[in-house]
Amino acid sequence: MTEPTTAVLVLDLLGVFVFALSGATLAVQARMDAFGVLVLAGVAALGGGVLRDLLLDTPVAALADGRYLLVPPLAAALVFFFSPLVERLGPAVRLFDAAGLGLFVVSGTTKALDAGLGTVSAVVVGCLTGIGGGVLRDVLAGVVPVVLRREVYAVPAVLGAFLVAALHGQGLRGPGAVSAAVLLIIGFRMLGVWRDWHAPVAPQRRV
Amino acid sequence: MTEPTTAVLVLDLLGVFVFALSGATLAVQARMDAFGVLVLAGVAALGGGVLRDLLLDTPVAALADGRYLLVPPLAAALVFFFSPLVERLGPAVRLFDAAGLGLFVVSGTTKALDAGLGTVSAVVVGCLTGIGGGVLRDVLAGVVPVVLRREVYAVPAVLGAFLVAALHGQGLRGPGAVSAAVLLIIGFRMLGVWRDWHAPVAPQRRV
Amino acid sequence: MTEPTTAVLVLDLLGVFVFALSGATLAVQARMDAFGVLVLAGVAALGGGVLRDLLLDTPVAALADGRYLLVPPLAAALVFFFSPLVERLGPAVRLFDAAGLGLFVVSGTTKALDAGLGTVSAVVVGCLTGIGGGVLRDVLAGVVPVVLRREVYAVPAVLGAFLVAALHGQGLRGPGAVSAAVLLIIGFRMLGVWRDWHAPVAPQRRV
Repeated sequence: MTEPTTAVLVLDLLGVFVFALSGATLAVQARMDAFGVLVLAGVAALGGGVLRDLLLDTPVAALADGRYLLVPPLAAALVFFFSPLVERLGPAVRLFDAAGLGLFVVSGTTKALDAGLGTVSAVVVGCLTGIGGGVLRDVLAGVVPVVLRREVYAVPAVLGAFLVAALHGQGLRGPGAVSAAVLLIIGFRMLGVWRDWHAPVAPQRRV
Repeated sequence: MTEPTTAVLVLDLLGVFVFALSGATLAVQARMDAFGVLVLAGVAALGGGVLRDLLLDTPVAALADGRYLLVPPLAAALVFFFSPLVERLGPAVRLFDAAGLGLFVVSGTTKALDAGLGTVSAVVVGCLTGIGGGVLRDVLAGVVPVVLRREVYAVPAVLGAFLVAALHGQGLRGPGAVSAAVLLIIGFRMLGVWRDWHAPVAPQRRV
Repeated sequence: MTEPTTAVLVLDLLGVFVFALSGATLAVQARMDAFGVLVLAGVAALGGGVLRDLLLDTPVAALADGRYLLVPPLAAALVFFFSPLVERLGPAVRLFDAAGLGLFVVSGTTKALDAGLGTVSAVVVGCLTGIGGGVLRDVLAGVVPVVLRREVYAVPAVLGAFLVAALHGQGLRGPGAVSAAVLLIIGFRMLGVWRDWHAPVAPQRRV
């Protein structure tokens, strides 16, 4: 994915856009001002990729390619002025969010493997790419990151990242392999939303 | 600003000192112990610059130049033992804080442009340099970052950073251009304090 | 410590394991799901080292050496299924935690000195290595970092780091010097636990 096809680029920017929507929406709910809405949109959309690039010690893609920085302000303005509309689009946003997760996890894992990391390390970097922006978004809003608390959000990411690593090890690194992993994550994630799956919590201890 | 003049160095260290005061003061208010006061002073004063250097992949200036690490302990000790005095100096601290913001935004934007970043990316890095320390300070103290919630703190930073980029593009990179941008940020910021300006919040939605 | 002896490696992985226990335990207490327990275990155990490597601009050791990534899942599973047992082991965990702190501070300071940093900078990096994981763990769990609030946790770290720097400056960099600094930190820390020492808090101001 060092030479992304147009399709991948479009999907990637769509993922950035939808993650930015999630950040801006949380900021509006938390009664932040316009600047806070802009910052949370940017952090949610780009934080995971920045974390990935810092860990891999590669140039920060969000700063090198101007297109990435133009998307969050659009999403922030949309939410700031039309938040009821965005809310009505809830189901579509859920789907885009799953798409963003899939894209980010797959691109992060691939970039880590290309940088020479081992399988487990690459899976960790890939998952951090997918969930890092949301974690930073929640920390800045003063809430415990939702991905750590409920919903099966991370399990599809982990499985998808391992699939990428397995295919990569077999020499399967083309659009077909990428698409398979992205679709696995999206499908698993949407199944979790539809069936309201939750990750288990440790057995309650007596106090 | 790779070869800072004595004036710039003094102002820069003054900015570090005042940001350290803000961190130490918040730590005392949050009933942290002496070590917490020291850490919050250091994070508020140096966090923005560290973030800038990580994003630009340049050596961390706060670690390379020992003078920066000596300032926060001074500010922490002052606040720890004489916090009522620091409080009485409120208006002066406000002015120094605006000066610190101006210096940090301008130096961050300039360093990013010198590293070859585009205009928008350099503005983002410059603003993160100016507000990053305060954001980390607030997160460690368990409060939602004040810069995301109220007051026109970030708008002068964004405008100042764009002015730096515009002047830089015209070849104007000397002390005059730097001073103009710093003074713009300080003046705009103090005007906001004086007139009690607030950034807009999204229209309230029905629940 | 670029060529760690088996003893150091074992102690280092033990430190990772115990810090992971602390993260997983906090996650269970905060009612996080299984993924949250895993993430907090990893962040507490590896966050300090990652911060150290980012600041020093060296490859992230936790990603380069697969052994480090295998330890936190073990600790997370142990806590998830047997948290009452882990609680009963409290005193032993306290000792391991002090050992982890000692090892991390000493290895972080040494790595920073080897990278050419000055004494004060190396002490700061060493202390961040020792306490950074715990700070990130607490921030993700939505609580103010315990190291900033109470207990003499950081003072042994600072003293130990300065001892490392002093010995390093005298050419004393072998296992003897390392062990002396680690034992100083462990001993001082356990003394603080035993005597219930607290760091001072600033004199209360009138409101």
